[in-house]
Amino acid sequence: MNLRLYLERRARLVDRALNRYLPGNPDHPQRLAESMRYSLFGGGKRIRPLLLLAATEAVGGDIQRALPFACAVELIHTYSLIHDDLPAMDDDAIRRGKPTNHVVFGEGMAVLAGDALLTLAFRVAAQSVADGVSPRHAILAIQELADAAGMHGMVGGQAADLGAEGTVPDLPTVEFIHIRKTGALILAAVRLGAIVGKARPSPLRRLTRYGECFGLAFQIADDILDAEGVMAVTGKVAGRDRARQKVTFPAVVGVPAARQRARDLLEHALDALAPFPRSANPLRQIATFVVARACDGPGR
Amino acid sequence: MNLRLYLERRARLVDRALNRYLPGNPDHPQRLAESMRYSLFGGGKRIRPLLLLAATEAVGGDIQRALPFACAVELIHTYSLIHDDLPAMDDDAIRRGKPTNHVVFGEGMAVLAGDALLTLAFRVAAQSVADGVSPRHAILAIQELADAAGMHGMVGGQAADLGAEGTVPDLPTVEFIHIRKTGALILAAVRLGAIVGKARPSPLRRLTRYGECFGLAFQIADDILDAEGVMAVTGKVAGRDRARQKVTFPAVVGVPAARQRARDLLEHALDALAPFPRSANPLRQIATFVVARACDGPGR
Repeated sequence: MNLRLYLERRARLVDRALNRYLPGNPDHPQRLAESMRYSLFGGGKRIRPLLLLAATEAVGGDIQRALPFACAVELIHTYSLIHDDLPAMDDDAIRRGKPTNHVVFGEGMAVLAGDALLTLAFRVAAQSVADGVSPRHAILAIQELADAAGMHGMVGGQAADLGAEGTVPDLPTVEFIHIRKTGALILAAVRLGAIVGKARPSPLRRLTRYGECFGLAFQIADDILDAEGVMAVTGKVAGRDRARQKVTFPAVVGVPAARQRARDLLEHALDALAPFPRSANPLRQIATFVVARACDGPGR
Repeated sequence: MNLRLYLERRARLVDRALNRYLPGNPDHPQRLAESMRYSLFGGGKRIRPLLLLAATEAVGGDIQRALPFACAVELIHTYSLIHDDLPAMDDDAIRRGKPTNHVVFGEGMAVLAGDALLTLAFRVAAQSVADGVSPRHAILAIQELADAAGMHGMVGGQAADLGAEGTVPDLPTVEFIHIRKTGALILAAVRLGAIVGKARPSPLRRLTRYGECFGLAFQIADDILDAEGVMAVTGKVAGRDRARQKVTFPAVVGVPAARQRARDLLEHALDALAPFPRSANPLRQIATFVVARACDGPGR
């Protein structure tokens, strides 16, 4: 399997579906839709929807049915980036090498674009019944999505992050924040893919374990890239986390120990997939690639 | 029927349910939950959930089953108030006679509290299946909710309002904004109540008509109270819309014509309910009360 080609092909599938849900020539209101599309089609790597589809594939499910949920997860991810970048939050002016949403459209419109993307995520998930998903599965998926995105998941993690800024971070706090802020939506993506793919209890448990381990490894890898990386890889201004005194793994345990933790988590994630056939190879390769990019680059 | 007692009893029912979904002693994260509860239990009159339950009652449905959706509508309304009050939007420091959310908790936390309330609304709606709502009805309701709240509804109206500020308003623009910004969620509340109450097509059509007419009348009445009213009634600083050059009905057609329009809309709303038995009296009385408060007070 050529991972790059696989990811590109799947990302195009996701982009086409997203484009259907949020067409380029909306009736109304023009400016809001522009703002939403600016961030949604702003160069995201679609890692969460790709994980979701890969999880469906791993359990032998129908990825066409999973596509609405893949879009929903990306819509939620995009909204969270817009709101996190706001001056009152992380105050970032650059994202993926481009000016952030509020820099281009103004703060008020950026708040609204985020609100509309979050709402659209649930619309799209509910609409999946028109594509043959059973109402019962759709409801289960919406519950998982809301739990991952809400006060006990992503928003809770961001709130804790906001509260911890400028304090001396410890490891439990960093893990608490990372597991919620980034891990919860990645875990939800994997679980949603499995649920829509009608996974049986044991494979679902193993994919849950994979999602938990990889979700945390993903954020640690992101922290390492920020601490060391160059803007060409992250699309953000490097060293920005340290400058803002953000709570990160490298800030607490140092870069070498952070790398070791990411590698250990990758091992656990791959172990969880052990009984799966080749259909789980995309999940294996995505996790390996993300961790390797931060841990095994030149001079590391 | 004593309207005041009826509204108080029903509002307590809604408050108790909201309290179960967002308990006062959450595990985590304390500050976010405080911020959410501050606005959710900040003196709202619960008009949207009361309309929803009244619509269920009008079609002879089970209001216990409708309660999760009543809560969802109020959660969405509350989130929209928090975000609308932000400095980058309407920049309001007072709401219901108290400092607005961002004044108390800071802008970042106010954005997150709104995000979490919106997400919780969909969680609560999906959870209704545990209370005996069929997954098919729950999915229909979630679609209606998302349509009313999203880019073609409430958020779209707020975006258009943001764009129209400071321009010379005309009647079509005012109606466009009002129908989306306020009307859509009121209409959704009425329709959701009817759908969960298993309304047949003809009563659903009539209740839709009621919701459309009353939704617009409600916002016109609010505009009139702002233009003329005192803070004791609105809980906001009177004349604030004019000072901000907000697009309102009185600003375009004058107060007397705005009052006439509200009265006409009330007539249409009541006409739509004509074939309904006494079970629709709460819907009749709520609409009459809201319009009369703005149009038939002393000296009007």
